[in-house]
Amino acid sequence: MRDFMDQDFLLSTATARALYHGTAERLPILDYHCHINPREIAEDRQFDNITQVWLESDHYKWRLMRAAGVPEDRVTGGASDWEKFYAFASTMPQLIGNPVYHWSHLELRRGFGITAVLTPETAREIYDEANEKLQGRSARQLMRQFGVKAVCTTDDPADDLCWHEAVAADETMEIRMLPAFRPDRAVSVEKPGFADYIHRLSGVVGRELSCTADVVEALKERIDDFHAKGCLCADHGLDRCVYAYPDPETADAAFRKAMKGETPSLSEVDAYKTVLAIACAGKYAELDWVMQIHFGCLRDVNRPAVARMGSDHGHDAVNSQSGVENLASLLNAFAENGGLPKLIVYSLHPGDNTAVDSILSCFQGGGVPGKLQHGSAWWFNDHRPGMRAHLTELACNGVLGRFVGMLTDSRSFLSYTRHEYFRRVLCELVGEWVESGQYPNDEAYLRKLVLDLCFQNANRFFRFGVQSPF
Amino acid sequence: MRDFMDQDFLLSTATARALYHGTAERLPILDYHCHINPREIAEDRQFDNITQVWLESDHYKWRLMRAAGVPEDRVTGGASDWEKFYAFASTMPQLIGNPVYHWSHLELRRGFGITAVLTPETAREIYDEANEKLQGRSARQLMRQFGVKAVCTTDDPADDLCWHEAVAADETMEIRMLPAFRPDRAVSVEKPGFADYIHRLSGVVGRELSCTADVVEALKERIDDFHAKGCLCADHGLDRCVYAYPDPETADAAFRKAMKGETPSLSEVDAYKTVLAIACAGKYAELDWVMQIHFGCLRDVNRPAVARMGSDHGHDAVNSQSGVENLASLLNAFAENGGLPKLIVYSLHPGDNTAVDSILSCFQGGGVPGKLQHGSAWWFNDHRPGMRAHLTELACNGVLGRFVGMLTDSRSFLSYTRHEYFRRVLCELVGEWVESGQYPNDEAYLRKLVLDLCFQNANRFFRFGVQSPF
Amino acid sequence: MRDFMDQDFLLSTATARALYHGTAERLPILDYHCHINPREIAEDRQFDNITQVWLESDHYKWRLMRAAGVPEDRVTGGASDWEKFYAFASTMPQLIGNPVYHWSHLELRRGFGITAVLTPETAREIYDEANEKLQGRSARQLMRQFGVKAVCTTDDPADDLCWHEAVAADETMEIRMLPAFRPDRAVSVEKPGFADYIHRLSGVVGRELSCTADVVEALKERIDDFHAKGCLCADHGLDRCVYAYPDPETADAAFRKAMKGETPSLSEVDAYKTVLAIACAGKYAELDWVMQIHFGCLRDVNRPAVARMGSDHGHDAVNSQSGVENLASLLNAFAENGGLPKLIVYSLHPGDNTAVDSILSCFQGGGVPGKLQHGSAWWFNDHRPGMRAHLTELACNGVLGRFVGMLTDSRSFLSYTRHEYFRRVLCELVGEWVESGQYPNDEAYLRKLVLDLCFQNANRFFRFGVQSPF
Repeated sequence: MRDFMDQDFLLSTATARALYHGTAERLPILDYHCHINPREIAEDRQFDNITQVWLESDHYKWRLMRAAGVPEDRVTGGASDWEKFYAFASTMPQLIGNPVYHWSHLELRRGFGITAVLTPETAREIYDEANEKLQGRSARQLMRQFGVKAVCTTDDPADDLCWHEAVAADETMEIRMLPAFRPDRAVSVEKPGFADYIHRLSGVVGRELSCTADVVEALKERIDDFHAKGCLCADHGLDRCVYAYPDPETADAAFRKAMKGETPSLSEVDAYKTVLAIACAGKYAELDWVMQIHFGCLRDVNRPAVARMGSDHGHDAVNSQSGVENLASLLNAFAENGGLPKLIVYSLHPGDNTAVDSILSCFQGGGVPGKLQHGSAWWFNDHRPGMRAHLTELACNGVLGRFVGMLTDSRSFLSYTRHEYFRRVLCELVGEWVESGQYPNDEAYLRKLVLDLCFQNANRFFRFGVQSPF
Repeated sequence: MRDFMDQDFLLSTATARALYHGTAERLPILDYHCHINPREIAEDRQFDNITQVWLESDHYKWRLMRAAGVPEDRVTGGASDWEKFYAFASTMPQLIGNPVYHWSHLELRRGFGITAVLTPETAREIYDEANEKLQGRSARQLMRQFGVKAVCTTDDPADDLCWHEAVAADETMEIRMLPAFRPDRAVSVEKPGFADYIHRLSGVVGRELSCTADVVEALKERIDDFHAKGCLCADHGLDRCVYAYPDPETADAAFRKAMKGETPSLSEVDAYKTVLAIACAGKYAELDWVMQIHFGCLRDVNRPAVARMGSDHGHDAVNSQSGVENLASLLNAFAENGGLPKLIVYSLHPGDNTAVDSILSCFQGGGVPGKLQHGSAWWFNDHRPGMRAHLTELACNGVLGRFVGMLTDSRSFLSYTRHEYFRRVLCELVGEWVESGQYPNDEAYLRKLVLDLCFQNANRFFRFGVQSPF
Repeated sequence: MRDFMDQDFLLSTATARALYHGTAERLPILDYHCHINPREIAEDRQFDNITQVWLESDHYKWRLMRAAGVPEDRVTGGASDWEKFYAFASTMPQLIGNPVYHWSHLELRRGFGITAVLTPETAREIYDEANEKLQGRSARQLMRQFGVKAVCTTDDPADDLCWHEAVAADETMEIRMLPAFRPDRAVSVEKPGFADYIHRLSGVVGRELSCTADVVEALKERIDDFHAKGCLCADHGLDRCVYAYPDPETADAAFRKAMKGETPSLSEVDAYKTVLAIACAGKYAELDWVMQIHFGCLRDVNRPAVARMGSDHGHDAVNSQSGVENLASLLNAFAENGGLPKLIVYSLHPGDNTAVDSILSCFQGGGVPGKLQHGSAWWFNDHRPGMRAHLTELACNGVLGRFVGMLTDSRSFLSYTRHEYFRRVLCELVGEWVESGQYPNDEAYLRKLVLDLCFQNANRFFRFGVQSPF
């Protein structure tokens, strides 16, 4: 029997341990996709207690607490921070096999040096100790503690990036904080608030936007602005992967209807989205940016709950109609039209893994290593079995050695432990292959593999320019 | 090398063995979903030979025998009981990796104390010994032998529940036999026989049913009648999970056409089904019943075979177009309208696991622990790898500690060994997590976990009120 | 730690090793499905260097090289054979976990006796040694070296089978080379070139083909011709599994439009394809042929690349809309109409495994052992985890003991090592079941199982009539 989450957690072989402790563990973190509020880094936010860091905006934990029977008052409601923490501690022992169980304990260990198991019995002691250790610690200090060297936040085209400017101008801040361009609100022509958003974007670029081509031009202008502020990548979130023949008139029909508050047809919506995706992709290719595409999500499915709490409160799900069958047509349209940029694709439906890998393989080429990437197991899939499934599929149907690796996708300054989790899963899997005679025990190649997957591939792909420690 | 199916079958670690033998093995069985004929319990049926218990109504075995080349005469035809048994015995050695191979041997062991391996060579001896031991044994004795404390049968709204009354009035019967309300024939407006069924239901409630609202009222009346006879749950079997806007007029159009022998459109059918589902769900919520929803099945796909043998003879399959994408809309309609009851959802398509778990999580809440459940691996998935996949997914995307556990879904008085199979798979999985350092080796929490998943969660969820042995 | 790919590669238990070395390893190869050019066997082609055998037509390797960043010039372009080999060698160390990594090293071992690990550092030495050993070796010699006793090539109905005649008449050739009937071009009424192809087929049968029934008659005539030349099986490749009511007039509408260069509707196309599938299936049943059906493929998705290189250059992918839900209707149509032949079904979408197995089970019967087969993990799935998943699913939802086993699906004379790969995976899986007490350690039954799955089942199913060595 192994000890609970000791230093060799998830590492069952000598090879895995050597690779993790000798290489992976010591590498900087490049968190190329997160949802941290740039203002919190710019102002170097301090935290009063662990509930603020842990439970204030973590819908993973909220969902589990609700399923365990915790009333909403102690999930997102008016209960005290201690009551919420205790409610979460009471949920914990039921979470056997859940990644949150591991992430939480990793965060206690790495963030606070607390190795006790969190239960209702230990809750008070842990709460007090964590809060004590949190005093005087700030967002930047947490980032440094985890070895973070670069983060990409998630930013709207209409955003003025003032917090990014502030951080860039701050000589005391050595960690790179870069924006990422996320034009979802300009793309989601079928969603409420589209017209208002277009008016806002119009204000930002200082001219009227009266057709799809105008929106495209506005976005391209903003892409250039983001580029000037160091931006290296974009992120397109689609509930469903769409492709329709990119007919400008059909796209304009969608745009006009949406601006008048009318409902465009599905085919008009898809044409509009396809036109914008092609245009953006071409611009990214021109600037050598990385384009990210997410799809396969059902948003806000519990409408009464969303009406009470708002979006992003734990009411999203996997869309099994992810539209992955359109991915090939969409990438082909990029290739045939404006250009195919470096790309990372994520689907929330785990059954899409093979389809995604096989489609991406069809578009590799041009002498760019790993030009098209199947992004790491996303959201409902970023647990140990999900990561293993993703990495195994990637290895079987692609070139694992070129994978750009992990991201947090998180709003929290403690969640960098997910990189540790990923690195352990990766080293364990590599260790299995080596120890079972499926890959040679060649230390130089193995160390290079781990270095590449945990650091260097992302560093090169995004062009972060961070110095490697090895 | 481990011995074949010894006492530690499927239990490879000390933790797994301790949890199984110390806790799981000794817990009563609550079989909250089965298809046993209530008359056989009321009359306490006796069996002449093992073929009657094993092969008389087991389409799992029939399918395997056919695939192994056994002619239909010796599967469901006129061959003698011995010939059928021998044909099955000849199939057995080819079934490596199949759950029927394990279930059958568990049934020989637990039902008859026979530990020999079933092959054509051992068939005669086993047949004779099993038959000898079967003499004088009855349905109730078999149930007692397996530690069954409660069963829910499957009953039509038009059923008079006379066998349930008889058992309830029988002072010699200490095992609870409760009905479960299954309104599929009132729901399946698109299927042959619908009009006849509605006339029958009309006769039962003593008034004409001339629109959807009438059917709803009739069902609610019968739900109250079932409730009065101790019913605690319902079961809705859908070939495909449906949702359509629950417009009463569209629903009525479906009803009227079906009653006239015309074919309603798909959208009319879906509206009718949605209206009924919402109404039933609301009523169940009011009575604190558990609602079960099954979907993802293709029924009677081999029409020539069905024409010869009838339904339920092994000609159903997984519907990969399970409609799981409608589940979120359906549950939202429950929440927005009549009320969301405690719920168990089963999909026959194993690729739906993550989607189901993630959708259910969006509707958890109200302070009810495990209010929405992803039911245990169903039918074509209730084998060791399928159970492991289901439990792992549940653990990764939900609160495993709140799961209500196993059921037989069976017509046989020997198939309670499936609970044993499930408990072994569960203890093995928990043992793996503990022994690899993924969960603390805390005996009290682990024993509680196993107690809850094998007995107490179902006991509380369904409100069986069975005394726990621990 | 096990040595890299030693004699016990993938065999971790004593049972697995005994079954592999004692039985599986020594069995002849029956490669019932491949794409080898019959001319190369008839003329007994010799090879100049390993690049010709390895990289000349292997889109698996091409895709990986592109993803690793190799420019097209050194993939399929004008670079020298040595440059291409070196580019592949440089890709190899990045392919941890990929089946090509194992296949390539198995081919070096079994084809050339080279046990060195292929890296850029060893590339030159291996290239020279392999080329030296290749001198004077021919296609037939390679086949003999691997123990091949029968191969089925892939042949068009309009083909004259002259190379097959030549081989059949060649007394120096003891390996059976049989044609397989692949009528895709006559079926693909929606694809460019259909009319030209029908004219060609018309020329072959010597009469005009002016409706669907004429095409059916022409195909049946060619099936008889193929039969006369020893053909035992057919292969239908469908991008998507289709079924539509087989209305002759709708089918004819598709045919007429296509012959005039017009675009038939989707429902017309599907009716045409269904009519042809039913007619062919009936004819195969009559002749006791094996029918193979492949589906779930997106072809030529990267159009700019296909425009440059042509089809079959690594630009195909998994079609997640595989149409598997139509499989039940299609097989039912066979059963209700012309007849249901022995059948092997392959889907490229791994998420279809359970659906395929459960649908096939509905059509088993007639006293034919394993009449309907779920073909071995295909193309993007024929890696170790994919094979394990396929075999496990087969065992759980069918009779594994009746499976017809592996094929290469390949154009190469070295790829028979894929049979070795499959046999190792199979023996390992069986070993796991036995050593963990899930199946009795009964040597006779286990040896028979391995003999059947690696050789005898295919031998009987296809009626090759090859002598068993045991």
